[in-house]
Amino acid sequence: MKRLILASVAMTLVCSCAMEPKSAEKLPPEGGFPFEMPLEKPTFKMSAAMNRQYDNWQATRPQLNELYSQFRYTALKGLNYGTMGRITRRDPSRIVKANGKYYVWYTLRNTPQTYVGADKANDVIPSTDWDLCDIGYATSEDGFTWKEQGVAVPRPPKPAAGWRSVSTPDVLAFEGKYYLYYQAFSEMSGKRGDDCPVAVSWADSPDGPWHAVDGVVIPNGAPGAWDQYSIHDPQPIVMPKDKNGKSKIHLYYKSDYNGKPNLIRSTGLAIADSPLGPFTKYELNPVMNSGHETQMFRFKEGVAAILDRDGNEANTIQYAADGKEFQIAAITEMLPAAAGVYDPDAFNGAAQGRGITWGLCHTVQWGDARHSYLIRFDCDLSTEIDDPNLKKNIGQPHTIDERLKRGLTAAQRKRINAAAESDLK
Amino acid sequence: MKRLILASVAMTLVCSCAMEPKSAEKLPPEGGFPFEMPLEKPTFKMSAAMNRQYDNWQATRPQLNELYSQFRYTALKGLNYGTMGRITRRDPSRIVKANGKYYVWYTLRNTPQTYVGADKANDVIPSTDWDLCDIGYATSEDGFTWKEQGVAVPRPPKPAAGWRSVSTPDVLAFEGKYYLYYQAFSEMSGKRGDDCPVAVSWADSPDGPWHAVDGVVIPNGAPGAWDQYSIHDPQPIVMPKDKNGKSKIHLYYKSDYNGKPNLIRSTGLAIADSPLGPFTKYELNPVMNSGHETQMFRFKEGVAAILDRDGNEANTIQYAADGKEFQIAAITEMLPAAAGVYDPDAFNGAAQGRGITWGLCHTVQWGDARHSYLIRFDCDLSTEIDDPNLKKNIGQPHTIDERLKRGLTAAQRKRINAAAESDLK
Repeated sequence: MKRLILASVAMTLVCSCAMEPKSAEKLPPEGGFPFEMPLEKPTFKMSAAMNRQYDNWQATRPQLNELYSQFRYTALKGLNYGTMGRITRRDPSRIVKANGKYYVWYTLRNTPQTYVGADKANDVIPSTDWDLCDIGYATSEDGFTWKEQGVAVPRPPKPAAGWRSVSTPDVLAFEGKYYLYYQAFSEMSGKRGDDCPVAVSWADSPDGPWHAVDGVVIPNGAPGAWDQYSIHDPQPIVMPKDKNGKSKIHLYYKSDYNGKPNLIRSTGLAIADSPLGPFTKYELNPVMNSGHETQMFRFKEGVAAILDRDGNEANTIQYAADGKEFQIAAITEMLPAAAGVYDPDAFNGAAQGRGITWGLCHTVQWGDARHSYLIRFDCDLSTEIDDPNLKKNIGQPHTIDERLKRGLTAAQRKRINAAAESDLK
Repeated sequence: MKRLILASVAMTLVCSCAMEPKSAEKLPPEGGFPFEMPLEKPTFKMSAAMNRQYDNWQATRPQLNELYSQFRYTALKGLNYGTMGRITRRDPSRIVKANGKYYVWYTLRNTPQTYVGADKANDVIPSTDWDLCDIGYATSEDGFTWKEQGVAVPRPPKPAAGWRSVSTPDVLAFEGKYYLYYQAFSEMSGKRGDDCPVAVSWADSPDGPWHAVDGVVIPNGAPGAWDQYSIHDPQPIVMPKDKNGKSKIHLYYKSDYNGKPNLIRSTGLAIADSPLGPFTKYELNPVMNSGHETQMFRFKEGVAAILDRDGNEANTIQYAADGKEFQIAAITEMLPAAAGVYDPDAFNGAAQGRGITWGLCHTVQWGDARHSYLIRFDCDLSTEIDDPNLKKNIGQPHTIDERLKRGLTAAQRKRINAAAESDLK
């Protein structure tokens, strides 16, 4: 009985909470909402949309939102791709500055021909674009021209984890050492799916040599858990230092769940005090409900992320002050796929992250010569620059050619023709 | 004092409201969030992102969201555009079915040459793409091939409102008559801005003849109000019938406020019992905080909208059960610009709107021969079809060519080169 009464009181309270305080019930000024958008939330009653301007968004215009940006793309110089899709470079890591240069690591495929699917693949012909790969790396002195320095981490001899392929690396610089986290395939990808553990190698220099560490860094979830099968796209970031000068390492990862064909992709988080763990999964995983090759970066006191595709919240920039409880900070478009960013504060435990202005991403060439390229992107997701050109949404609307490339399938056209005929009968 | 005590109590209540009930404080099942995404909101504690799956989104996957869609584009047959940008067709109206055909109205420019800006324009050479225009119309028997039927509403002789240009029409079919609402320019657009009143013409048939009505349909806001200057893109829709079989007409319109260069575009709403008014503005206008050429359509008991660009909530589909209090229903991409949809329930006062599967939109050709085309789009924002191909987000990722077309300006490249040089010093 007591509980029922409490419930009834709670109901009333919920209602009064949902309502604005008395002073907010007054109507807008005579004539309507003001011509000059108030910087502070007005105290008069507003529509749901205008309330969101102040409650949900960083600012009343994207131009004033540090986490809103458009993206500009530039081809790289210095990396060659051979013929007929033989060579792929994809899934670039975060970019690291060392020895007066920028370093990037990536999935490097150099096979006699392009990928052909699991049915036709063999020991030398790859099943997928990330099959039979090594971790390659390149350096640059301007961020636009890159020189491949060769293989950083080769796939090890059978039966070591990763003997079939190592792919999708990310890098961590921590207390004088470098760590590469990557997916280690011990069977051809594309057969059952892409299940593989995350492996790690370390080095004293970004030029190597790299030393593989035994064991699995992030264990799969228990049977029945969202991350029981895949742990992909490992991505370390160093959180702000605590009073003792110590930082937690946040290792984000992607898993695919809910089963085919209704896959959902989300991001989980595992936390450790040192690069080799042990990593403890955050109890409220997943920390994101969307995104595919999501890229995190330090921003202000927390962590921001680019969610390029998949899910309800694809095409957003998100932010979590604690690196765990992410909120949508901006909706944008034509985001980089599989971004690897130059985040100057990724590893320094800075109290305030400055954000990012550039990175590399990949783009896929389809057809007979299918493979992936690395290209560069620039943006303004940084407190250090203010580039109005990058804050103006849809500065260059999609052309007719770009739209017509997204055409109807023959089946759709047939359905549509029949519907029109029936409609006009 | 009493008020202070109340405030203090209120604070506590706000906190308890924000918290989940006791039962929701339990942790996820052993091992973590389940592999199969629960259809109903779980009672265990979840991250902010996973709470949004249930609290903010229509479904846990866009594929299950009736208001999520990708867009496919098809060129139209039958409309010619002459040479050097002489002819423009843009800002298509809603599409109406009558006499066994589909009808569409649009801004039609047919001038000796393309538009040149207000400084160089004269009595026959247009300042903007919508200067020196008439309202044209076309019909189709399949939605893909269109035949222009000529001018529906010409610009009237000077000094009648619209003598310089009539543009951006939308149509209403109501109680056996047809109404065209459009922008009526009595001075060259692009001079001060685009300030002009909304005019209306009516006809007994979609083929005309059209009779211009004297007077302004939607007055500008009072001095200092958000809509004091521009009333654009008039867009009527008929709300569900009440008990007496009567419907309200919702006339949505766009205004630009906050002053250049910090323009904000929002949508306002004016309501009337009959097509010629009087229209009463909704007291909590604006009802949307974003969007440029926003397109409304009847959906379920309310109104949904495509917000193609501009503002914090560009690239979203929104929904309001009452046609006033819009919420974000989906984030999507490559939306049609200035859509005019075929909404079978736009004017029938149906209790449940079925939504839309197609429409026309415009796309702009830049350069020396600059002008606008009408093209067709298809989508699944309808309860009547279920096309998984249109629910799969980013089915066709952007190509390298499309990305490289969004390149850096020379000034950006200079800034970026200097930053890299300084960074690597």
